[in-house]
Amino acid sequence: MPIKPARIERDLNAFAQFGRSGPTAVTRLALTPADRAARAHLIDLCRAEGMQVRIDRFGNIAAILGDWDRPALLLGSHLDSVPNGGRFDGVVGVVAALEVVRALKEDGHLPPVPVGVVNFTAEESSRWGRATLGSKGLAGVIPADELMAYTDRDGITFGQALQENAGYDLVGGPCDFGPIAGFFEMHIEQGPELLLASKPVGVVTHIAAPSRYKVFVRGLASHSGSTLMGRRKDGLVAAAELVLGLERIAKEVGDAVVATATVFSVKPVSINVIPGEVELGIDIRGIDKESIGRVTGGFRKLVAEVSARRALPIEVETLSEEEPVTLDPHMVEYLSQACERKGIPFLAMPSRAGHDAMYVARVAPAAMLFVPSKDGLSHNPAEFTALEEIALGAEVLAEAVRAFR
Amino acid sequence: MPIKPARIERDLNAFAQFGRSGPTAVTRLALTPADRAARAHLIDLCRAEGMQVRIDRFGNIAAILGDWDRPALLLGSHLDSVPNGGRFDGVVGVVAALEVVRALKEDGHLPPVPVGVVNFTAEESSRWGRATLGSKGLAGVIPADELMAYTDRDGITFGQALQENAGYDLVGGPCDFGPIAGFFEMHIEQGPELLLASKPVGVVTHIAAPSRYKVFVRGLASHSGSTLMGRRKDGLVAAAELVLGLERIAKEVGDAVVATATVFSVKPVSINVIPGEVELGIDIRGIDKESIGRVTGGFRKLVAEVSARRALPIEVETLSEEEPVTLDPHMVEYLSQACERKGIPFLAMPSRAGHDAMYVARVAPAAMLFVPSKDGLSHNPAEFTALEEIALGAEVLAEAVRAFR
Repeated sequence: MPIKPARIERDLNAFAQFGRSGPTAVTRLALTPADRAARAHLIDLCRAEGMQVRIDRFGNIAAILGDWDRPALLLGSHLDSVPNGGRFDGVVGVVAALEVVRALKEDGHLPPVPVGVVNFTAEESSRWGRATLGSKGLAGVIPADELMAYTDRDGITFGQALQENAGYDLVGGPCDFGPIAGFFEMHIEQGPELLLASKPVGVVTHIAAPSRYKVFVRGLASHSGSTLMGRRKDGLVAAAELVLGLERIAKEVGDAVVATATVFSVKPVSINVIPGEVELGIDIRGIDKESIGRVTGGFRKLVAEVSARRALPIEVETLSEEEPVTLDPHMVEYLSQACERKGIPFLAMPSRAGHDAMYVARVAPAAMLFVPSKDGLSHNPAEFTALEEIALGAEVLAEAVRAFR
Repeated sequence: MPIKPARIERDLNAFAQFGRSGPTAVTRLALTPADRAARAHLIDLCRAEGMQVRIDRFGNIAAILGDWDRPALLLGSHLDSVPNGGRFDGVVGVVAALEVVRALKEDGHLPPVPVGVVNFTAEESSRWGRATLGSKGLAGVIPADELMAYTDRDGITFGQALQENAGYDLVGGPCDFGPIAGFFEMHIEQGPELLLASKPVGVVTHIAAPSRYKVFVRGLASHSGSTLMGRRKDGLVAAAELVLGLERIAKEVGDAVVATATVFSVKPVSINVIPGEVELGIDIRGIDKESIGRVTGGFRKLVAEVSARRALPIEVETLSEEEPVTLDPHMVEYLSQACERKGIPFLAMPSRAGHDAMYVARVAPAAMLFVPSKDGLSHNPAEFTALEEIALGAEVLAEAVRAFR
């Protein structure tokens, strides 16, 4: 068996040391010293396999077996983490990618294109407040100068951090990857579906995209004792109708969407004052535009209805409206056929969290493979995927790469 | 006409200077230097009328025409304010009381008992987190040592503040009032009912009492993208059901009750996390026990139902359950007959806010008179009652006192 779990374990343990912040906790925000050390370690590991390393202008690192003169098939994910995150999110995909390259090299079943490992910069939103900066840059979905100007809480822009910490010195400066032949991203599921379905791997068919809104409910604060029920403009009861209505609308549309409301603020907060202003945060995610449209449309209708009936203004501010991604059918087929050939049961499923593959999919054929998350947990020191589960995912990935044409 | 609006105006303006914190704003927390100055001014004004002043051990100040050898009829309210409050809440009742005593003395229509002015200490909860400390102490509803141990944010107890700032030095030390023949409290309405009914005064028949609860909804925080709607234990949607259900139950019971929910906290607050723990504050007020019981009972049933249906624990902690007060029918009659004799239209109405009269009513016959609040506002620099409205209230009060036996 060419995939060697011991090497996966060694690499996972090594990466878990960079930014270790507890027995099973990692704090490795993008382009901080801990992340830079992890990036340098990845470059060392790749070079040890004879791979050619490039870092593009967004800090994405790719290393391929063979030359950069042809489009390569890239495997990978991201090395950065959230604050006090776990040891698996992102890293599992990079470590498995490296092991797949090693195994294919050893058994001689390399595909007819150069194959390699990729690490995308700043997948997590923890440092610059927005996610997947590296893959967004690579895909050109946000102009480079705009991306480079994103500023962290210490006033450091993404561009400055790249200049100082991307590791361009290790590879002789930035150099873009050029066209990509294909991209496979293996990632922990971050949800419970594989466990609930008792399947060891998930082949991702769509990536749900979040639409996010701020809702300002402008009621009127007044005395909780002297204001009769019929004379109130209670911001909280109006907000409660929106929270419950959003749940109802999403349930009616079905499992293609999820919708969540949270309370950002209530003013004033006092047990003897009717709440006036309530600010909600709304997150709607779906795997197809039609379902998302039904929820956002239904919610906007509800807002208008509640505002009119309760005679108080409600404003909706759009924070973002991203489009869901249908992954490349051929790439998805490579993964599901690999499972079938190896007799591994799989779940065809959407990803409900965002990933680098969302953006890579805009410029290259892309697909994703999920391995199980214990208790569905992630972004948490308790996140866990067993070594044998990761190795099984790597087996599927290796089988798909072998077949890639 | 014995009531002299000019004297009322002069006194109101004088008191508005103590703790003035804006053109029409007053910040005069109980027993702070500003309140002490106001208290000393009241003592001066009363002595100028030949009244005998006492300060009891709770700092309540009473001044009567005549001797302290018999139970007196007391008129008054409170001089302390909330932070950034207005110029009328409480003060109007003290100033009108003084003007009534002056007017009755001038026209010689004094009742057959000593009559005087009273100022209760710390009616507002702003400093010690609980309201009506002075009248609670006088009525003995809370043991004196417990009251004296209430501590403000600076670590100063009510007892310490009394020792230092009650003004005992002005009157030769604390001296309790003894039995009270009756109590009339005039106060601004702090609500819109008089304006809506186009009545210049309100004769208060009941005082609604608040029952207050903390509700802890213990949902489960999880990823807003990867948790399907049917697998959620969303603390906020459960809380929203309680907020809306409370409104519905209170509306069904009718105008004898009001019920208000506010959000004390939501954890965690992040647009991509399903809210787990939500803490609500619930305030239920009613003018009779039966109506209050229908709301609290209905709410507890709702809590159990939502908890069971959504399979998440919800705990209810009782903060306080006060009993509504029916004011003394004879005292109420003195006020309504005074209105009738003077041809002044009045509204018989409950008070939905708490007042010192709630507690005085436990140890003496008590009633209340409301004068209108512009826009129903109070606890706000915009609170306003016109001089002629205050003077009309004082006329009614004087007429009731004249008739008192």
